[in-house]
Amino acid sequence: MPESPIRKLVPFANEAKKKGKHVYHLNIGQPDIKTPEVAIEAVKNFNLKVLAYSQSEGTEEYRTKLAAYYRDKNVNVSHSDIIVTTGGSEALLFAFGSIMDPGDEVIIPEPFYANYSGFTTASGATIVPIVSRIEDNFALPPIADFEKLITPKTKAILICNPGNPTGYLYSKDELKQLSELVRKHDLFLIADEVYREFCYDGAKHFSIMADETLHEHAIMIDSVSKRYSMCGARVGCLVSKNKSVISTALKFAQARLSPPTFAQIASEAALETPAEYFSEVIEEYVMRRDILVKGLETIPGVRVAKPKGAFYCVVELPVADTDHFAQWLLSDFDLNGETVMVAPAAGFYVTPGLGKNQVRMAYVLNCNELKKCVQILDQALKVYLSQ
Amino acid sequence: MPESPIRKLVPFANEAKKKGKHVYHLNIGQPDIKTPEVAIEAVKNFNLKVLAYSQSEGTEEYRTKLAAYYRDKNVNVSHSDIIVTTGGSEALLFAFGSIMDPGDEVIIPEPFYANYSGFTTASGATIVPIVSRIEDNFALPPIADFEKLITPKTKAILICNPGNPTGYLYSKDELKQLSELVRKHDLFLIADEVYREFCYDGAKHFSIMADETLHEHAIMIDSVSKRYSMCGARVGCLVSKNKSVISTALKFAQARLSPPTFAQIASEAALETPAEYFSEVIEEYVMRRDILVKGLETIPGVRVAKPKGAFYCVVELPVADTDHFAQWLLSDFDLNGETVMVAPAAGFYVTPGLGKNQVRMAYVLNCNELKKCVQILDQALKVYLSQ
Repeated sequence: MPESPIRKLVPFANEAKKKGKHVYHLNIGQPDIKTPEVAIEAVKNFNLKVLAYSQSEGTEEYRTKLAAYYRDKNVNVSHSDIIVTTGGSEALLFAFGSIMDPGDEVIIPEPFYANYSGFTTASGATIVPIVSRIEDNFALPPIADFEKLITPKTKAILICNPGNPTGYLYSKDELKQLSELVRKHDLFLIADEVYREFCYDGAKHFSIMADETLHEHAIMIDSVSKRYSMCGARVGCLVSKNKSVISTALKFAQARLSPPTFAQIASEAALETPAEYFSEVIEEYVMRRDILVKGLETIPGVRVAKPKGAFYCVVELPVADTDHFAQWLLSDFDLNGETVMVAPAAGFYVTPGLGKNQVRMAYVLNCNELKKCVQILDQALKVYLSQ
Repeated sequence: MPESPIRKLVPFANEAKKKGKHVYHLNIGQPDIKTPEVAIEAVKNFNLKVLAYSQSEGTEEYRTKLAAYYRDKNVNVSHSDIIVTTGGSEALLFAFGSIMDPGDEVIIPEPFYANYSGFTTASGATIVPIVSRIEDNFALPPIADFEKLITPKTKAILICNPGNPTGYLYSKDELKQLSELVRKHDLFLIADEVYREFCYDGAKHFSIMADETLHEHAIMIDSVSKRYSMCGARVGCLVSKNKSVISTALKFAQARLSPPTFAQIASEAALETPAEYFSEVIEEYVMRRDILVKGLETIPGVRVAKPKGAFYCVVELPVADTDHFAQWLLSDFDLNGETVMVAPAAGFYVTPGLGKNQVRMAYVLNCNELKKCVQILDQALKVYLSQ
């Protein structure tokens, strides 16, 4: 298993905290947003004598309500198209395990969520990266470039939409191009749509599952972690109209017996979350994004890919090696006893050398804290570059 | 992924229920025993605003209390020797993933818990079975027989103690023999000890972790599922004093982010379960075992391996093919509208042809129901054998 790019920094962060420094965590995707009360209350009020296994594919009640949630999003699925998983992580593992044999290849636009590497390795498959660029805001690379990478071993293309770490939201046209490509070459299109609810500036999210021509090819990965700020629930799902994918994934699900019961109770109740919860959360994230992005843009030599969704952005810094810079921020710098922790972006790329001058920042802190983070980074870069 | 031997029967059970038959489930390990109130109440009373990720290795609080629980069992470990997992299933996956490469071999006494096959396959490894026999009550096969199976590809021996499906409890002497063997050949000894608390007739459980000479070789698999009747929690753990195993398993843990948070709260509180809970549960299981075993022994041609632990027994029936018999029980037989569902034992063996005249029964029903099950099986065998 490869080591996460962030993990390497953890001992330095711990050391900084021991010395009394305050560390602002821009490095992780753990939102500070409150979990909907309806979800927490459901667990507290549930009358349960035996905490028993649920069905391996998740309770029928939860899957039925989840299908209704998706139908509201123009995704016409039924409970039997859904397998509830232990987080989106397990949904990805099941998807890879169900469609790939050792030696098979999956094409993924980079930069991508670092844990995709672990899940691919665990399935014996290989990632074939295709570069998306900060200059293009990390838009979909040209379809012709994808086509050049397709071999007899290619089984799937994987996208994250909206993207972690890029914050990019694929347009309907980009998704149509991908749809044509996977149908032409008989591949799977896997879309990690866990950030679906987080789209900004009036932009609309299009699910690959809404494209009826893709039914045999599309596998959607989802999770309650970010949607309801329930990362600790560990409930996700795999959704597909392809019966063979579902029946194979079910065998993986049966081997691990069942997803967690308490968390399914919370997740089912979370579907009743009032619409205002999301509008407030989105308003908050837009404010945060604007503070962070606009703030960063005032720093000389800094370039930001403006995110249209999720709560991350990739930031280019005027330094040669962000691994070193991120470590230095923790070990050697503070502004009035405070510093920031960022995720060096090289870990989100497979192609050697890429991302070395980029970092990912998660805007999961409140507006005042984000303002301070910008000040700290501004000052830190001045000191770092003058050394 | 191979199909579970029980899953094949599920459609027949569903069909039987649709026709109005009552089906007694002797086929599954879902206890009817109540979860300790202290565990349920802890979740209800927990004041939680954001259901956040926990540490990938589990919360330090929980691991610290868990280490104290093990020290009470003569297992001298600290929180840093423990990785909390999503059920015992994930602990097995992490263990296999951490010590085995594709093509490696693990020796397992058969019959064994059918899902071991899935976890082995998922790690690209191969199971080498060694037969234990109902005539010997499924005791440890002779060490010389193990030794014959060891090749340069052998990485580990896996035991389940007390055993599912056998109910066999390994003696201190048997464990000592295994300990010498794995040290001699530099192998790992993995012990699935999830049924530790369920030992009967005053028999004592010995953990492989209590053997200090085994520290570099021993990996213990554990789970709250059976111990506290919390199968739906999905909390287990991997325990080892081998630092390299722990650090590799931690990478797998980090890739799936964290174990479920609600369930860790419940599991931590469950450690406060009063001792009477276990003495009452064990008394109940002994009564059930005695009713089932003594009842079965009165049926002509039936042989039972008397279980010393867990809540399963393997039963030899006077039929040629228990796959067929188990299906027939559901499809073609009833006694006053009632029938039983059992697990054909061939699915617990790898060696072709073995276990075809055996079934596994789980005594997870109350005493009255178990008496009825015996009556139904007695009558069913008469009808089946006269056809």
